[in-house]
Amino acid sequence: MKVTLIGTGNVAFHLAAAISKSSCPLVEIIGRNAAEGKAIAELTGSRFRPLGSDFSATDLILVAVSDDSVEEIMNRLPGEVPAAHTAGAVSLINRMTGTSGVFYPLQTFSKTSAVDWDGIPVLTESHDDVLLASLRDLAEALGARPRQTNTEERLRLHCAAVLVNNMTNHLYAAAEELLEKKNLPFALLHPLMRETVAKAMRMSPTDAQTGPAKRGDAQTVNRHLQLLAEHPETAVLYAILSKHITRKHNG
Amino acid sequence: MKVTLIGTGNVAFHLAAAISKSSCPLVEIIGRNAAEGKAIAELTGSRFRPLGSDFSATDLILVAVSDDSVEEIMNRLPGEVPAAHTAGAVSLINRMTGTSGVFYPLQTFSKTSAVDWDGIPVLTESHDDVLLASLRDLAEALGARPRQTNTEERLRLHCAAVLVNNMTNHLYAAAEELLEKKNLPFALLHPLMRETVAKAMRMSPTDAQTGPAKRGDAQTVNRHLQLLAEHPETAVLYAILSKHITRKHNG
Repeated sequence: MKVTLIGTGNVAFHLAAAISKSSCPLVEIIGRNAAEGKAIAELTGSRFRPLGSDFSATDLILVAVSDDSVEEIMNRLPGEVPAAHTAGAVSLINRMTGTSGVFYPLQTFSKTSAVDWDGIPVLTESHDDVLLASLRDLAEALGARPRQTNTEERLRLHCAAVLVNNMTNHLYAAAEELLEKKNLPFALLHPLMRETVAKAMRMSPTDAQTGPAKRGDAQTVNRHLQLLAEHPETAVLYAILSKHITRKHNG
Repeated sequence: MKVTLIGTGNVAFHLAAAISKSSCPLVEIIGRNAAEGKAIAELTGSRFRPLGSDFSATDLILVAVSDDSVEEIMNRLPGEVPAAHTAGAVSLINRMTGTSGVFYPLQTFSKTSAVDWDGIPVLTESHDDVLLASLRDLAEALGARPRQTNTEERLRLHCAAVLVNNMTNHLYAAAEELLEKKNLPFALLHPLMRETVAKAMRMSPTDAQTGPAKRGDAQTVNRHLQLLAEHPETAVLYAILSKHITRKHNG
């Protein structure tokens, strides 16, 4: 199955890298940003063509562009080629011609950080069974784990992914800032961070909850809030999360 | 170095387990809760004695009790034996007689979840150099990594630990609840959770930030908030964290 990729962002970059190492030939990378696109093409032994060029022969077009460009791009594609977008929060697109689907990898992608595709869930969606099978095959070719969902389930999983990735990462950043202020190495927290995630996977995170807010230990919570006076944004997050944890476990 | 342990909670349990496997003999476990204390003693091949009993000969007393009991207990101990408490947020105690210290393992402890002590930072503190050396030796005997701090640094690290453990774990629980509502397995998020923490350790979490709030993608944020209408507490957390992330990265 020959694949063409549209997009030059984080997801496009990692898809290009993974496809180029898989059994599926990567035909070309197409996008608006020529500099980024050429860089990705070079890194993945592929070639870049600007958006608006003719498409070379391909079996599947993957559209890995920003959420608000997905629909427009999907409707500009040649109708004879099946196409799927990779955005977690964008509904299945009804193209004017041609079959459409979704290929959403439930993972975080940064250009500077390698991705291990092994076992990553890829949420697939399409009204077309042939395209659905192609998307499943592509996920498996990357070493990922395909899972067919509908748009509603996918949005829910995307929202949950934001909670466990974007939001927890912001708390990591707040902790790092707190330590850096007094030249304490963030690495001191690494074993705790590792164990926190490991424990939440071994047992339910509700059962794994510990700490002053869970115990209803207002004195410790207040000591921390005093310390956070110099970090008012973090203090706000700390206060509201503590309140929620206390309520959940002592409500 | 013979060690006596006071306490029957999560930290006491895991300390008893680790000490009993180390080169330091665990003399006895002392506590208020006889049922828990006897269970820990049995699991660790040690013996339990109720609080108020005479102490058997020992070189160090570790006080692993709830934060608001630390000071009272520390002041009831035999003055000739050095003692250290394990609470992250409690200041160094000035005992009426005897030297005192702190032995705070920067880790999360649940009785139902095994702990790997290898490389865990143990924050030590004392005005007494001999006790400080004993605390360092004990940490090393457990396979942990001792680090001398003062009370202020320790409180800061404890607060940062709450952010990266208690608060992130609460977000995991919120995500689990969101998925369970529609019978979607929480395990679908495991690869993302693993990668989130791995990435935040490989690079700065500020640089690792991704997602709709960082991109300033209000449409996706709003779609998630609509979905969260049935989970109002999670909606509040989602909204405030999104606002902070957007402000930090686009401010």
